[in-house]
Amino acid sequence: MGDLHAGHAALMERARAECDTVVVSIFVNPIQFDRRDDYEAYAIDLEKDVDFCATLGVDFVFAPSAQEMYPEPPSTFVEVAGFSAHLCGKFRPGHFRGVTTVVAKLFNIIAPDKAYFGEKDAQQLAVVERMVADLNMPVEIIAVPTVREPDGLALSSRNKRLTPQERAIAPALYGALEIGADCIRQGCTSATQVRRAALAHLRRHPELRVEYLEVVDASSMTPVETIGGPVCIATAAWLGAVRLIDNVLIDNIGT
Amino acid sequence: MGDLHAGHAALMERARAECDTVVVSIFVNPIQFDRRDDYEAYAIDLEKDVDFCATLGVDFVFAPSAQEMYPEPPSTFVEVAGFSAHLCGKFRPGHFRGVTTVVAKLFNIIAPDKAYFGEKDAQQLAVVERMVADLNMPVEIIAVPTVREPDGLALSSRNKRLTPQERAIAPALYGALEIGADCIRQGCTSATQVRRAALAHLRRHPELRVEYLEVVDASSMTPVETIGGPVCIATAAWLGAVRLIDNVLIDNIGT
Repeated sequence: MGDLHAGHAALMERARAECDTVVVSIFVNPIQFDRRDDYEAYAIDLEKDVDFCATLGVDFVFAPSAQEMYPEPPSTFVEVAGFSAHLCGKFRPGHFRGVTTVVAKLFNIIAPDKAYFGEKDAQQLAVVERMVADLNMPVEIIAVPTVREPDGLALSSRNKRLTPQERAIAPALYGALEIGADCIRQGCTSATQVRRAALAHLRRHPELRVEYLEVVDASSMTPVETIGGPVCIATAAWLGAVRLIDNVLIDNIGT
Repeated sequence: MGDLHAGHAALMERARAECDTVVVSIFVNPIQFDRRDDYEAYAIDLEKDVDFCATLGVDFVFAPSAQEMYPEPPSTFVEVAGFSAHLCGKFRPGHFRGVTTVVAKLFNIIAPDKAYFGEKDAQQLAVVERMVADLNMPVEIIAVPTVREPDGLALSSRNKRLTPQERAIAPALYGALEIGADCIRQGCTSATQVRRAALAHLRRHPELRVEYLEVVDASSMTPVETIGGPVCIATAAWLGAVRLIDNVLIDNIGT
């Protein structure tokens, strides 16, 4: 969706290392926004983004207009059941349907052999992987680790909308996830206890209004109560007018 | 869906004439059946169907098992809005969602340049065309005219389930469509009058239980009241335990 930063650069560098031809799509997809103000805040500087891609050795940028992508109001949707009940799917109605639909379109237009997605959007990654498997799409999905600021804040285009005061508080979100992850690494198998520890940390920053903080199965992204395999702790919180999301994966339980 | 007949042969012959490589898919798709008895009646003889394809110069038959196509219960669906309110979409809940989902899968697996569909399943053809356009699928949809018995009955795998008595009555369905089409060709622009004329013909055969008979726009497949462009008269009727569908396209109005 443009407004490119070092998180996107990690995707491009990985693709550049693994592929003959690298295509970057830049498209602020109207049908995945549940709130109009959020969509309108995505005013991207395409020229700047294209320059950014060029410095990373990208071969093509695909940057269609909304009119080109949706010449008529879209009537066909790709939907993965079970992803609207939890996490972002619960709080952003229609969001993942918009994501899977536009990703299906982009795959059909570009026909990539591999497609690179960031782990920061963990539920998006899971829903795309499920779509690709269920619909036999001829593309390999590559997950790229989240890139963070030195203080732990996950990179996001939305970070620049934070005030300096909010920016100083924002790393607490990742801090809370790490506290939860430490609980699990130390042997805690109760999701309730993990959540309690993480949320206690967040309560020190009442400016962070938590939308959800859940311990979920790492592949299905559905909440678990007893932790017995790879899990993700995923959270979303509001800071002023900005919604931030983050997650950590804990996949080496008991090792 | 196998049980191949001369209607399918027309698709294969057209593909054989236009393409270097011809692939036929034979798959009785469980997720497009709204009634279990109808699904179970589709007991196909794969060896016979493959021989049929061979005589027509088909290069490959793709005949997966349900387990291969749906290794897990499917959670991803492709759905075209607006097709469930009318005609077969109204009377067969979930049917077109099952069709578009499996066709999307088949397109991803086979990657055809062209795909051939029969005009007999007019609403299916329209929904697939809409899906392809909306999702930018890199395939050209080719519509092939309905093949009929000498008495007018559209070929269908279901015809052989008719008793001899029912088989004798079945052509009345096409007869009614032709009566409606004649009304339009003679200048009638009222869908109500066209339906009345066609239904009057069907009332002579009370064994035919009409599910719908509608005059619809030929591209959107939604009912029209005043006929001013290409339309389709589409019908579905039950004869004993067998559901038959048929349609005629009238696209040279006023010429």
